[in-house]
Amino acid sequence: MIAFTRGVPPPESFPAEQLAECARSVLQNDAERVLQYGNAAGYLPLREWIAGECQVSPEQVLIGQGSLQLLDTLVRVSIIPDDCMFVEQPTYDRALTIFRRTGAKLFGINLKNGVLDLQELEAKLADGILPRFIYLIPDFQNPSGALMPLEHRLHLVELARTHGFYLIEDGPYRKLRYKGQAIPTLFELAPEQVIHMSSFSKLISPGLRVGFMLLPPELILKVSKFAEDTYINSSYLNQALAFNFIERGWLQEQIDFLRDIYSVRLNAILDELRKGFREMGTWVEPQGGFFVGLNLDAAHELSTKEEIHQAGLVLTDSQGFFVEGGERFIRLPFCALTPEQIREGMARLHHLLEV
Amino acid sequence: MIAFTRGVPPPESFPAEQLAECARSVLQNDAERVLQYGNAAGYLPLREWIAGECQVSPEQVLIGQGSLQLLDTLVRVSIIPDDCMFVEQPTYDRALTIFRRTGAKLFGINLKNGVLDLQELEAKLADGILPRFIYLIPDFQNPSGALMPLEHRLHLVELARTHGFYLIEDGPYRKLRYKGQAIPTLFELAPEQVIHMSSFSKLISPGLRVGFMLLPPELILKVSKFAEDTYINSSYLNQALAFNFIERGWLQEQIDFLRDIYSVRLNAILDELRKGFREMGTWVEPQGGFFVGLNLDAAHELSTKEEIHQAGLVLTDSQGFFVEGGERFIRLPFCALTPEQIREGMARLHHLLEV
Repeated sequence: MIAFTRGVPPPESFPAEQLAECARSVLQNDAERVLQYGNAAGYLPLREWIAGECQVSPEQVLIGQGSLQLLDTLVRVSIIPDDCMFVEQPTYDRALTIFRRTGAKLFGINLKNGVLDLQELEAKLADGILPRFIYLIPDFQNPSGALMPLEHRLHLVELARTHGFYLIEDGPYRKLRYKGQAIPTLFELAPEQVIHMSSFSKLISPGLRVGFMLLPPELILKVSKFAEDTYINSSYLNQALAFNFIERGWLQEQIDFLRDIYSVRLNAILDELRKGFREMGTWVEPQGGFFVGLNLDAAHELSTKEEIHQAGLVLTDSQGFFVEGGERFIRLPFCALTPEQIREGMARLHHLLEV
Repeated sequence: MIAFTRGVPPPESFPAEQLAECARSVLQNDAERVLQYGNAAGYLPLREWIAGECQVSPEQVLIGQGSLQLLDTLVRVSIIPDDCMFVEQPTYDRALTIFRRTGAKLFGINLKNGVLDLQELEAKLADGILPRFIYLIPDFQNPSGALMPLEHRLHLVELARTHGFYLIEDGPYRKLRYKGQAIPTLFELAPEQVIHMSSFSKLISPGLRVGFMLLPPELILKVSKFAEDTYINSSYLNQALAFNFIERGWLQEQIDFLRDIYSVRLNAILDELRKGFREMGTWVEPQGGFFVGLNLDAAHELSTKEEIHQAGLVLTDSQGFFVEGGERFIRLPFCALTPEQIREGMARLHHLLEV
């Protein structure tokens, strides 16, 4: 079976020996702090490092057990009945589940050829549909791999300012860029209108469960208090491991190492797409991240679960990425597969779609 | 300042060197599993160990980032509008906050001389007030230090069976018994009516953030799925550290070590209470755990925050332990203070209450 499913890092990417060294150091030098309860906002040295990286005050940084849980906390605190939320369509399925649970009315704004349809968004606003939040993954989007162009970022923050809503910018893939130049984040463009979230799951290891959120001053205390009331605090031990790893200069080395592995895998999947799938659908060529999204043409039906299984493939249920629809979309995560597995998997997929 | 506040373990109790050794071992032998995402239910070897200890199937064990978060997940999944919940009064303030957020109607059933008033409870049931859950801390209760007698345990599980509600049994202090013999848990008496929760925070370290819940088969899948949808999974690295610590035989050693420290501290605070506080109030003599609860007589007012601060003391706001009331109660955690600090703190408290 070849699994084009979750966007998980491959085990060969885990810096286990380095983390063991970090654990030794942290438990030798900071045991009283990392083994105790602490402030829900997180381990201060890591908050300060993130604040420095992102040019905010450490008071605006909230660290937690992965960024998804922080997103859940944010919407539990902020969403009230009859609220609306906009999301890119397709979008990250787990975020969509979090939003559905709030009871907010959800609207998917379509990505057209990988670009958010701002006309559709503005039409909603003109109709008087004002969102509390717009959730966006501007860098190497999950599940499409798309990159939001600068002019769209500028336009979005302008809309947020004018209409008084927040943009939630989810950026876990941003540092995994394999070609091209970085574009400013939404947060860099308008920190007062943007809640930025990211994590170390894709850069160090998901097992640490260390993610973070940058919140504007008017939200940080409310969200941190709710987090404290839910779980007291996330593990400082894990946060200290991440900080120690960074302090030793290993994060940049690790990112360079990941780029080397992943860019080869991205090229492998793009080669297969270009060779065999031009007649079947469209995709955006990602410059980074974990995913390519394949939009099937009307002539090509997605197979049934049973057919997919018989073909030796595992695919994520695409409808989870959409508020409505999603029957003609396939997410292809490429980082956890070797180039050989990618070639074999794409051959199987091609055969399946041809039938 | 002497802080009679949260029930945290003292830093001198943390087995930092042993945990460093566990980290080395776990990252050498099980890195692919502990550094990856995993099933929300938790790290299988630890689930299996807990299952063996508690005589349940591993499928009934859910491990998470501390037990409070699991409690939050349980009530988010289970409580529906117009539900009722009963709690001991006083009870653990953080659990009460979790319950208040659900919107359930809360009823405090009073502890009278440390014993749950079952007449009051049965009167509620006779009035047609049927709870979804009753939340209980039978062993060395937070905040009173009380121990629930066996006949009350038997009576409660009988009521749960008859009326068809669940008992939530919170047991983090159970293994910290300094005198007397263990009484069966509610879960041991009626596993089908009881949701048992506990954690390693008080036995190894709060910094690991490893707690667990035993759920009946009809609830486990729903609660685990909700947990997955909220945070994917809690850190397997931390869960593996706890398991490795246990596997080496260090948990029992650690518990013996903690009993030695804490029983001296319990005796110190009981000595002070007996010497100076008989005229001021009543308390139950705990056989274990972290707390003694002092109920002030009507003649003795609790001081204002300012007076308490000026006396060089920090006390938890007692009203947090009560659904209603709580003005005449003082929680005295004794584990994180040395006998000298306890003597000095109790002298200050005595002086304050005398004025």
